[in-house]
Amino acid sequence: MAEDRELKVRSLLDAVRAEGRSALTAPEGKVIADAYGIAVPGEELARDVEEAVSYAARFGGPVVMKIVSPDILHKTDAGGVIVGVEGAADVRAAFHTIVDNARAYAPAARIEGVQVQELLPKGQEVIVGAVTDPTFGKVVAFGLGGVLVEVLKDVTFRLAPVDADEALSMLDSIRAAEILRGVRGAPAVDRWAIAEQIRRVSELVADFPEIAEVDLNPVIATPEGAVAADIRVILARSVPKPRRRYTREEILASMRRLMEPSSVAVIGASNEQGKIGNSVMRNLVDGGFAGEIHPVNPKADDILGRKAYKSVTDVPGEVDVAVFAIPAKFVAAALEEVGRKGIPNAVLIPSGFAETGEHGLQDEIVAIAERHGVRLLGPNIYGYYSTWQDLCATFCTPYDVKGGVALTSQSGGIGMAILGFARTTKTGVSAIVGLGNKSDLDEDDLLTWFGEDPHTECIAMHLEDLKDGRAFVEAARATVPKKPVVVLKAGRTAAGAKAAGSHTGALAGDDAVYEDILKQAGVIRAPGLNDMLEYARALPVLPAPQGDNVVIITGAGGSGVLLSDAVTDNGLTLMEIPPDLDASFRTFIPPFGAAGNPVDITGGEPPSTYEATIRLGLEDPRIHALVLGYWHTIVTPPMVFAELTARVVAEFRERGVEKPVVASLAGDVEVEEACQYLFERGVVAYPYTTEKPVAVLGAKYRWARAAERLGAEGPSGRAVVGDGRDVGGRSMS
Amino acid sequence: MAEDRELKVRSLLDAVRAEGRSALTAPEGKVIADAYGIAVPGEELARDVEEAVSYAARFGGPVVMKIVSPDILHKTDAGGVIVGVEGAADVRAAFHTIVDNARAYAPAARIEGVQVQELLPKGQEVIVGAVTDPTFGKVVAFGLGGVLVEVLKDVTFRLAPVDADEALSMLDSIRAAEILRGVRGAPAVDRWAIAEQIRRVSELVADFPEIAEVDLNPVIATPEGAVAADIRVILARSVPKPRRRYTREEILASMRRLMEPSSVAVIGASNEQGKIGNSVMRNLVDGGFAGEIHPVNPKADDILGRKAYKSVTDVPGEVDVAVFAIPAKFVAAALEEVGRKGIPNAVLIPSGFAETGEHGLQDEIVAIAERHGVRLLGPNIYGYYSTWQDLCATFCTPYDVKGGVALTSQSGGIGMAILGFARTTKTGVSAIVGLGNKSDLDEDDLLTWFGEDPHTECIAMHLEDLKDGRAFVEAARATVPKKPVVVLKAGRTAAGAKAAGSHTGALAGDDAVYEDILKQAGVIRAPGLNDMLEYARALPVLPAPQGDNVVIITGAGGSGVLLSDAVTDNGLTLMEIPPDLDASFRTFIPPFGAAGNPVDITGGEPPSTYEATIRLGLEDPRIHALVLGYWHTIVTPPMVFAELTARVVAEFRERGVEKPVVASLAGDVEVEEACQYLFERGVVAYPYTTEKPVAVLGAKYRWARAAERLGAEGPSGRAVVGDGRDVGGRSMS
Repeated sequence: MAEDRELKVRSLLDAVRAEGRSALTAPEGKVIADAYGIAVPGEELARDVEEAVSYAARFGGPVVMKIVSPDILHKTDAGGVIVGVEGAADVRAAFHTIVDNARAYAPAARIEGVQVQELLPKGQEVIVGAVTDPTFGKVVAFGLGGVLVEVLKDVTFRLAPVDADEALSMLDSIRAAEILRGVRGAPAVDRWAIAEQIRRVSELVADFPEIAEVDLNPVIATPEGAVAADIRVILARSVPKPRRRYTREEILASMRRLMEPSSVAVIGASNEQGKIGNSVMRNLVDGGFAGEIHPVNPKADDILGRKAYKSVTDVPGEVDVAVFAIPAKFVAAALEEVGRKGIPNAVLIPSGFAETGEHGLQDEIVAIAERHGVRLLGPNIYGYYSTWQDLCATFCTPYDVKGGVALTSQSGGIGMAILGFARTTKTGVSAIVGLGNKSDLDEDDLLTWFGEDPHTECIAMHLEDLKDGRAFVEAARATVPKKPVVVLKAGRTAAGAKAAGSHTGALAGDDAVYEDILKQAGVIRAPGLNDMLEYARALPVLPAPQGDNVVIITGAGGSGVLLSDAVTDNGLTLMEIPPDLDASFRTFIPPFGAAGNPVDITGGEPPSTYEATIRLGLEDPRIHALVLGYWHTIVTPPMVFAELTARVVAEFRERGVEKPVVASLAGDVEVEEACQYLFERGVVAYPYTTEKPVAVLGAKYRWARAAERLGAEGPSGRAVVGDGRDVGGRSMS
Repeated sequence: MAEDRELKVRSLLDAVRAEGRSALTAPEGKVIADAYGIAVPGEELARDVEEAVSYAARFGGPVVMKIVSPDILHKTDAGGVIVGVEGAADVRAAFHTIVDNARAYAPAARIEGVQVQELLPKGQEVIVGAVTDPTFGKVVAFGLGGVLVEVLKDVTFRLAPVDADEALSMLDSIRAAEILRGVRGAPAVDRWAIAEQIRRVSELVADFPEIAEVDLNPVIATPEGAVAADIRVILARSVPKPRRRYTREEILASMRRLMEPSSVAVIGASNEQGKIGNSVMRNLVDGGFAGEIHPVNPKADDILGRKAYKSVTDVPGEVDVAVFAIPAKFVAAALEEVGRKGIPNAVLIPSGFAETGEHGLQDEIVAIAERHGVRLLGPNIYGYYSTWQDLCATFCTPYDVKGGVALTSQSGGIGMAILGFARTTKTGVSAIVGLGNKSDLDEDDLLTWFGEDPHTECIAMHLEDLKDGRAFVEAARATVPKKPVVVLKAGRTAAGAKAAGSHTGALAGDDAVYEDILKQAGVIRAPGLNDMLEYARALPVLPAPQGDNVVIITGAGGSGVLLSDAVTDNGLTLMEIPPDLDASFRTFIPPFGAAGNPVDITGGEPPSTYEATIRLGLEDPRIHALVLGYWHTIVTPPMVFAELTARVVAEFRERGVEKPVVASLAGDVEVEEACQYLFERGVVAYPYTTEKPVAVLGAKYRWARAAERLGAEGPSGRAVVGDGRDVGGRSMS
């Protein structure tokens, strides 16, 4: 059956291409639709009046009847079109009228018959389509039809093919999703019928790489079904050749030797201060790397007290990584030697390749590497850190705070920002990797490795493009169930609207596709650089939430209102506190404090009130995450709050109660020290902001949902919002 | 004429209220519409067939004809409705048919005639309405009609009444604005006709406070006009009594004595450490306040070495401010004495009033204050700072970095965050004021003062509600042309959807109204606490831009891409660099660097390249603002970059060239010192973020537009977006 439909479409497409066309005609579109079960209006050519009656009867409702003649181009002018004919008598009459009109209009015309076409009912117009994205390949699109939605760009994308459930999920991924469920008395449309149209279009483009775009526009959706009023198919002028892929095992084998090497050679190692080859050597040595470090330099006997080799081929024993610190023009020759020596990884720090327009030079080294099976990191990078190996193969300064986050950046500038941020915040790092030109190794290789690396608990990546969006999604999907992946995609707002031959194409601005597909891959997208850095720092610190119920406990009513705003902004659920729990909170807070959520303990309270309420929040199993709002007072100074909070949280963690706790500290400068103290003890705390701690908690929740640790999409995908204004009005603190 | 229409509506409303109704009937709605010139379909009661013909002829196009009989309720069942009748013959026939049908249906029915009503053409459905907002009073609303927009909540609000231009501006304030201008071949609608409907509705509700809501839903807009298919009017059950208002001169007089006092009394001053009355005294003394400080305490002879008085009435000479540091229950009595002494300002630190449910106590002190003409700040506040007077009338620690920003907060917690943030960032402050319960003085009083205060260059306010939205807007409109006003409105996302009797009402969530009206008032709304603090710190530092052209100069291509994203996100205009300027930039940067915008000087460049390009950016009069992206390298270390940038900017400022310059520094921790250095020299610089510097520049631009310093709304209200991806791909740094 499936083969049959493919054969049918294949022969049609071959015929179209043989004619040098790239756009299919309407009848050709119908052949494809029929082959793939894409619902379109029924239509038949009636050669005589009885055929017309029988076709009309088969279609059921009213039909459109049109003259079919190679000699009549303007059917309407010829009186050759009648819309909305129903019942045998009317069909008969219409057939005769049309033929008579045509004869009167053009007596010599050859008349082949009358086309009888199902008349589509009124319904909700939707658009289903598919395009070929330069990064992700075939993607399927869904949105509501009509100018309004084209103006508002309310459309969603998935990698093709999709299964039925994934197709159905697209109906809920548009902002105006509610409309399909029926609003203001309108009936709900047949959601499965729409999903089925999406699924079938996605199969079609997945089966035929040469189909560049498909448009079903509009699809008329009713409570009874979803039929495409029009199908448009456009073929690609050329199909890109598939990229070379490595197996998971191959990737892990070479990445392990890159990230956990026993022996590193530095090509271009130097004794001369200020040279990159000197910085790299010093960083390797000073960083405390315990493996072998072999300087390679034809002009030196020893470098930093270590024996230097004329060529990497002279280095004794196996070498895992060759770090290049030589000018671009010398790289190719040295890479040949690295290949001959059987070194699996070349780390190419030098610039002067594709990024400066030297594409030929870059192609040359890629060819050498492929020939020898050497994997390339870079070129045009700062190098990389593998902190648990005390390995600093960069020309920057060493970084030694070991921890759970692996950071990668396409840009060196961003890499330096990562380093500075990590140092000033004492972020626990497992690795920092520069990707630069990504001539070979890229995000999906790194994701595959970090997914397995036991030191890495969270991965954060800055990227400007993906060489192979599908490989990235595949690697992300394999990694996300184990650990969070944060992505900062730069170039979000770049002039997206490309010239395109279809509606769907015009709707697929680069970023819209990235946004939807990264979300489907379970990736946490950071809106900006600082967010990426903060998520990276904080996510490994927070335990995963076990459920959706977030409770705010605050000493400052004013912070409570802002924290509530942030909870809603981040798609989190402010728990509706049950009466018994409310009563329990009330036993600890002054009568004019506000239970409910936020729990407002009021500003004048002693440490014991903070402690009792935090304790209750951790104790009660119905609460899954705590957001604390601290207000600096003489009664409870910042470090007192920090110590009690850290102590209580640690006590519960020892008892096996692991809930994410974040805190916003409002106060004089002492709160900064308190935040650092809390952070180092597993409580994500920030001064002078109510937004950041909740944004981080939101990121952790997004991951927990993607990793299916919370069950599906949360209770209903909706946040329960407390009335922040009331809370604020009541306590005014 | 205007009086005539008011009389007409007044008598109608009185009649409706006399009947105890709050909803008007359709005919009553039509009377109001006609009085105010709100276009509705023409309709007339034809008593005989000739009248019907003449009315139909007057309306022009097709009409709807309906039986009018007090005895026939279900007109359609009676065959009493015919739609789309056109031409004298058809109108005649329809009249007879309707009357005959009615007679056949109900032979005994009294038939008054046939209603002839204009049939509205097809067109774009829009909604025009008005509601009574609890904060802002009468507001007028506009949006597109149909379920889609009701689902997407694409609607905009203005204070009523609006003039014609303001009404017209609403058409461009919705997200789907493009539709009204005609998309995909559809013709543009008559914008002035829609605006006129808005304007007239706004006049109606402004004239009649007892009209709670008006709905024109839908209004059918076509290229030829805009006619309301339906008008719905709902009356209020009660009209709130107007709030007591002070004149501008009264406000300035008392505020001057509050903020620049010569003599301050502290009621409840104390020698006992830990007491608020002790902290306030110490802060006044230690802060260096040069005026008189009079402790008042019935139980002490002297406090901190100053003579103490039993009662404030005993204090010699005039007193400008009485600071209260006594428990709530003693406030009323002391306030009586303050009133008798003729002190114009009472600063009420104590809590225990409305915020703890003690509304009676608060009402009591307000009554005392009004009787004596004393203005109240608070109660339930931390006090206030007036730094240029070295005045610290709070129980917190003194703050002495004098500068241009005045900060206010409704909440004490947020006040403490302001203090800590200001101290750690060395923010130059003119005042910090706690507003607390706002029993009297509120944001509009403070705005009025700070607008005049020569020390204040920027005002930032945290608020949870406004007591009088219109007074605030009035004060903001008077202030914004002189200096920026930043507002953090907490409770943005609070469960907004109130039960409401009309579509417009349901669309008017609290925050939607705040958002639009604050924007109209020219206020810069901060999305969060940290944003408010950063805007407050940075805005006084930056000169105002003179035009829209923003240029990014970056050493890191990666930062350039992110900075471009941020420029677009903030609604700024990435200048399209003319060829001659492009050529000038190219003379300074390596051949593989990228001119265009961002100007990518590439990462390996010496200080001279940064200096030459920044110099060019300041020199060329076509460039109005610079965004710098710095990348930490050995060739140009952070402090070298900071010094050269500060020096060049200072040199140009001395020459009278004042352009805003912001910078994002990517690098190791030394960039933090460089940022502080730059900030103190008028360049707004941040480490580890590409978003913040541009967000601040965006805030400055929003102000410059609101203050009409840029001319209208920018070139076309649209940002010209460079292709960030290309830039990144090219330089990869």
